Amino acid sequence: MPNPTAAMLVIGDEILSGRTRDANMHYLAQEFTKHGVDLKEVRVVSDDRAAIVSALNALRTGFDVVVTSGGIGPTHDDITADCIAEAFGVHIGVRDDARALLQAHYDRQGVEFNASRQRMARIPDGATLIDNPVSIAPGFSMENVHVMAGVPSVFQAMVASVLPKITGGAPLLSQSLRIMRGEGEIAAPLGELAARYPDLSMGSYPFQRDGVFGANVVIRGSDGAQIDHAMAELAALFPQQ
Amino acid sequence: MPNPTAAMLVIGDEILSGRTRDANMHYLAQEFTKHGVDLKEVRVVSDDRAAIVSALNALRTGFDVVVTSGGIGPTHDDITADCIAEAFGVHIGVRDDARALLQAHYDRQGVEFNASRQRMARIPDGATLIDNPVSIAPGFSMENVHVMAGVPSVFQAMVASVLPKITGGAPLLSQSLRIMRGEGEIAAPLGELAARYPDLSMGSYPFQRDGVFGANVVIRGSDGAQIDHAMAELAALFPQQ
Repeated sequence: MPNPTAAMLVIGDEILSGRTRDANMHYLAQEFTKHGVDLKEVRVVSDDRAAIVSALNALRTGFDVVVTSGGIGPTHDDITADCIAEAFGVHIGVRDDARALLQAHYDRQGVEFNASRQRMARIPDGATLIDNPVSIAPGFSMENVHVMAGVPSVFQAMVASVLPKITGGAPLLSQSLRIMRGEGEIAAPLGELAARYPDLSMGSYPFQRDGVFGANVVIRGSDGAQIDHAMAELAALFPQQ
Repeated sequence: MPNPTAAMLVIGDEILSGRTRDANMHYLAQEFTKHGVDLKEVRVVSDDRAAIVSALNALRTGFDVVVTSGGIGPTHDDITADCIAEAFGVHIGVRDDARALLQAHYDRQGVEFNASRQRMARIPDGATLIDNPVSIAPGFSMENVHVMAGVPSVFQAMVASVLPKITGGAPLLSQSLRIMRGEGEIAAPLGELAARYPDLSMGSYPFQRDGVFGANVVIRGSDGAQIDHAMAELAALFPQQ
């Protein structure tokens, strides 16, 4: 069977103005090459509805798989989900499962789940959610188009979630733990744990909140029971205050 | 007058396979923003004739200015110039002025100007050459399309050559000197020279040949007489063996 062909659509004025240097194209190119998917074209367009919809339609009809990055955050210029709905001619609205994920996330953090943040639960009809173990707000897949965040750590986590679907490999499961310590304290015990579970991948995504350092540690693999074991060990290493 | 709109076409399998991380898009985005040109779209395509010609035609009719990078070297997969000729429906062949530039360059280096290297003198009819003070092999402009090399230092030098044409600024002149010393020896005297000519820009592009270090030093500005003066001083600082 020939390799599937793929295209990428990068959405964002910040790339085209030079304010941000895109990192996701190079990451996706490497991951696709590693997994036997042929990336044939990349387009970068601005936060402009007509430009996004036209590029989407050209790419989704021209290639087996399309990955988009950017434009799914809470601000007014995050219009990717609406453009996907328009390109596919389907309705878009706040979806209960996506809203529940985000509501629980913001409740845990004691942050208001306001109208802006609820925008991130708007999902086109017929899409399936893409897991975001790093910052919760989900991506989604609509037929052959996979819609992901622009923030590199989140983009990378979403690529890991979707790759098995694209390549026909075993689906990847993930669990995450929020640890309120600096990465310097987490690194050594996490490294030892990872060495004892060679079939799992463990990633640490640091953050800072109100001057306190923490990290989301994500454990991924295809064996759910093994992930449960590793997660229990991780939780025992870093008891929550 | 509104800003001119621009698009970029990056050509090369090495970007799409993830072997090389593109640096030119970010550079061009920053330069265009600085000079009031609106970069609206970037496409990355592989070394495939149909893909290049189709992207070229879409971009050159959709935007005021198009910059391409990559695919103008000496190897069989460097097909950008042929694709430009095809897109514009013009003949392409080795051009005398381009061949003379390259012949002199390789003679100076004592390197054979073989058939592969002569490919770099193939220019579509009606194009004007873009100066390459770094490694001589020219780019070219065809109507609103500016064809540049993919190697970042050469790409950047060609952007500097073409920007005044795009923005209507004073044309930039350049001269270069090949200095057979390491950059560590060149840096301090060049820095002092640059400080005394604030209207000129001076760049150093290092290379290594048969274990010997050298650099092409390029002086750019809009005042030819001033460049002549600075170049004479530079040559006196670093007498040729």
